[in-house]
Formats: sequence, C-alpha cells, structure tokens
Amino acid sequence: MIRSETKIRVRYGETDQMGYAYYGIYAQYYEVGRVEAMRLLGFSYKEVEDRGIFMPVIDYSIHYKKPAYYDDELTIVTFLKQIPTGMRIPFEYECYNSMGELLNTGIVTLVCVDKISGKPCPMPTWFREAFTPFFP
Amino acid sequence: MIRSETKIRVRYGETDQMGYAYYGIYAQYYEVGRVEAMRLLGFSYKEVEDRGIFMPVIDYSIHYKKPAYYDDELTIVTFLKQIPTGMRIPFEYECYNSMGELLNTGIVTLVCVDKISGKPCPMPTWFREAFTPFFP
Amino acid sequence: MIRSETKIRVRYGETDQMGYAYYGIYAQYYEVGRVEAMRLLGFSYKEVEDRGIFMPVIDYSIHYKKPAYYDDELTIVTFLKQIPTGMRIPFEYECYNSMGELLNTGIVTLVCVDKISGKPCPMPTWFREAFTPFFP
Amino acid sequence: MIRSETKIRVRYGETDQMGYAYYGIYAQYYEVGRVEAMRLLGFSYKEVEDRGIFMPVIDYSIHYKKPAYYDDELTIVTFLKQIPTGMRIPFEYECYNSMGELLNTGIVTLVCVDKISGKPCPMPTWFREAFTPFFP
Repeated sequence: MIRSETKIRVRYGETDQMGYAYYGIYAQYYEVGRVEAMRLLGFSYKEVEDRGIFMPVIDYSIHYKKPAYYDDELTIVTFLKQIPTGMRIPFEYECYNSMGELLNTGIVTLVCVDKISGKPCPMPTWFREAFTPFFP
Repeated sequence: MIRSETKIRVRYGETDQMGYAYYGIYAQYYEVGRVEAMRLLGFSYKEVEDRGIFMPVIDYSIHYKKPAYYDDELTIVTFLKQIPTGMRIPFEYECYNSMGELLNTGIVTLVCVDKISGKPCPMPTWFREAFTPFFP
Repeated sequence: MIRSETKIRVRYGETDQMGYAYYGIYAQYYEVGRVEAMRLLGFSYKEVEDRGIFMPVIDYSIHYKKPAYYDDELTIVTFLKQIPTGMRIPFEYECYNSMGELLNTGIVTLVCVDKISGKPCPMPTWFREAFTPFFP
Repeated sequence: MIRSETKIRVRYGETDQMGYAYYGIYAQYYEVGRVEAMRLLGFSYKEVEDRGIFMPVIDYSIHYKKPAYYDDELTIVTFLKQIPTGMRIPFEYECYNSMGELLNTGIVTLVCVDKISGKPCPMPTWFREAFTPFFP
C-alpha cells in the first residue's frame, strides 16, 4: 500500500460566505495529496507529464461529514490500496482537521492518456514498476 | 420533475496545463446549475439563506467522459427527479458541449442546516411547498 | 476606442467568509471582459493562441470601492482607449453592480509572446490591422 | 519593518493552458503571505476577525516579470515597511522561484472595517500596538 500525509492550510479565498471551505476546493486538496503520494514512487507527476503521459481524472466522489474553516490546518491522507493494473489508478482520501476529526472521505480515479494521441493508454512499464516495492 | 438548463463558458483561468477545464471547476458549474434550477421555485438560493437556511453539500460525485476546453460554451442540465423528503436534496447533472457531446454526469446532494444552530434541520414548510407544483 | 460590456453573476464559490466576492476573483472577471472585447475584432482570443501568439499579463492593478455580493449581476465594462503600438495592450475596466454603483476600476496590460520561442514579440500584422477600424 | 517569507508550491489546478500559474492566483498567494506576516504580531488574521475587524483589500497591483510553472516552489516575501497610521495597511511583495529568480512584485493595501457597521474604521489600539516592536 502507498499512504502519504500532506498538510494544507485553508486560505481565505477558499472559504465561502457560509464560512466553510468551499465544497469545490477539495478537488485541489486531493490533487495536492496524490502529487505528494506519487513523489514516494521516486518521481513527480510533473516528470510523468514530461515523459509523455497525462493523468486526467475519470471519476471523483467525496462525502462531507464536517466543514473545514478558514486557517484550519488540514491533513490529507492519500491511499493507493491496490497495485494499479490496466489504465486506472484509484486514490482514496481521508481529510482531518487539527483536532483529528474526520471531515471528508473521497476517491479520485485517474487514467493514463498518451500526451500526443490524446487517447487513453496502458500505464508504461517504468511507471508500473515504480509501484512494485509498495505492494510486496 | 424540475429540469433546468444553464449556459456556462469556460474561462481561461479555469483551464489547466493539460488544456482541459480543470476537473475541480465542475463543482462551481454544478452549483451555478442548481442555483438556476432553484429560481424556478420562485425564490433564489440567496433568499433561502436570508430566511435562515444554509444548504451545504453532503455528497458529490462526478464521472468524466470527455474534457471541456477553453472558450467552450457548456450546457449544464440540472435535474431534481424526486420531491425532496427529509433533509436531503439530490440534484443530478449532465454537462454537454456545444456539439451536444455529453462531457460528464454527476450528483450533488445538499442538506438543510439551520443558520443559527449550525445543525441539520428538516426543510421548512415554505420551502417544501415550493416543490409541490413540479411533482403533480 | 473599443468598448464592450459583459454581464457576470457572482458564484457562491467566489464569495469569501466576509460575504464579499473574493478580491482575487476580479482577475477572472476582467479576463472574461477582455475576451468579449476582443471578439469585436472579428476573432477570439482562442484563435489568437491557435495562430501562435500567447498574451500573458504583464501588469495588473485594481482599485476596490465597494464589494460585490453573492448572486449580484455585475457589468464589466472593458475599454481599449488607444490603438496598441509596440508589444503592449492595456485594457481598462469598470465594474458595476445592478444598481449602477461603480464597484472597482482596473487596468490589465497584456504582452504578445511567441508561442514557440516563449519570448515577447511585436503584434503580428493581422492582429494589429484588426484594431484599425476602431480608431479612425 | 516586518518581513516574512512563505513557501507555496504551485498546484496543478492553478496552472492555465499556457502552462503558467494563472495570473489571478497571486492574489491568493499574496494573501497567504500577509497572513503569515501578521502571525509575527502575535495573533492571526482569524483572531482579528473574531475581535470584530474585517480587513478587505482596497488596492492591489502586481507586476509580472516571469511566469511560475506547475510544481514550482515559490517564496513569497511580504514586507510592511512603515508602521500603519490611519486606516490603511500597505503590504509589499516579492515572489521568487526556487532558482532565486524574481517572478513578480506587488502591493496590496488593506483597510480596517468594523464587522458590525460594515464601515471603515481606525485600527483598534490593541492592533496598532502590536506593530510597535517592529518599528523601533
């Protein structure tokens, strides 16, 4: 399993007039979480793109339990629970506030796309092999 | 059933370096869609808040089929397929580009929260009754 | 002179916990305003990019007089007061609410950049000539 | 003088299709910078609001020299060069990338507003006095 934790502080511009972190901002927070999770593989998502692979999102779902507020320091826990096979990579998430309360959970599924053709493609070997050490 | 259509043009600042409308922006597009759907009830979401009810999102899921691009004019179709009972209001979505291609589908479920107590509450009578004409 | 008016409604996700449209959102509103102003030239900003020219912002300033609120319908008035010479195109802005109150004013200066070299370049002839009819 | 440094990494959702960090995102980065600068005073901006003072932006200007890119780690340097008198607090900014290149400079001027009346007000004594140690 891959598991990583990322701290993110809620910005003023990310709140809405309810005083909550806007429900749409978690797409960014989760994105930051999986970018940090991927660094554990030994390269960055930026390098994945430089090597010719885009990874757009194909499915995203989130369940909100409690709101986050301005200036809260959140912990985004990102999981990859199974070694990816085929074209899809499902990241699972838990988001906690600084009191340890679970604020929301979610799943974001990415797909590999060839940068030149713009079409979905299997995960390249160098990419697939980077996951192996985490799933012994 | 309630059904409404809203046009939204993709802004430059909403694209990402893949050249797609960022996957996180649809939370805003869907929000605009349901605000327009709610105007059909005879009042605005702004008035709902003025009358003491917040409507935060409790569940959000979206399935992406094709990307939208900069300057595309999208049509957000918002549905409320069943009369809301209890505290939850599930809006369903379809997003099309100007060629009529279905780009994504989603569901956003709102819950009523009392503005003063900050706790979930049943939908007030004036609110519930506004839905009646749409579900004869 | 080029002058265009664009209507934009403040989205919920664009408000902050002060209840104002976030001060940073006007960069997007002004961008929408100049994109609509440019359509008067007979092509879109999208086509400008397709023809090999990027137009990044080099200077941006805004003076806020009054806030905008959620669901307000704003009018962005965009001006190009002088025919662009050299590499810079300065757009001037006025933003009004639906009661005709002036909320903010600003200036955004764009520069032409060659998409391939990534370097600033003079405005191409086809682009420059499109401005001529507006400055007789 | 007050001077503080904040690190911010450019998120994917903050890029645009030019491949740059969108010009409008610096309003958020600068906001994060001044929030960290204010923590040096011994309280957070959140506490300022809790004590009844909003601090909306009245003037914002930014000059862009070079773009930032996805995954760049930026350093936002925030300065308050003079002790604030009257109602205005001008923060000055420099934004650098990890190679030490100056990407942009800016000024954001805040004004104190009484949360209840919604009107501009002088800076309260507890707030003003917090600045004194930095301007001996």
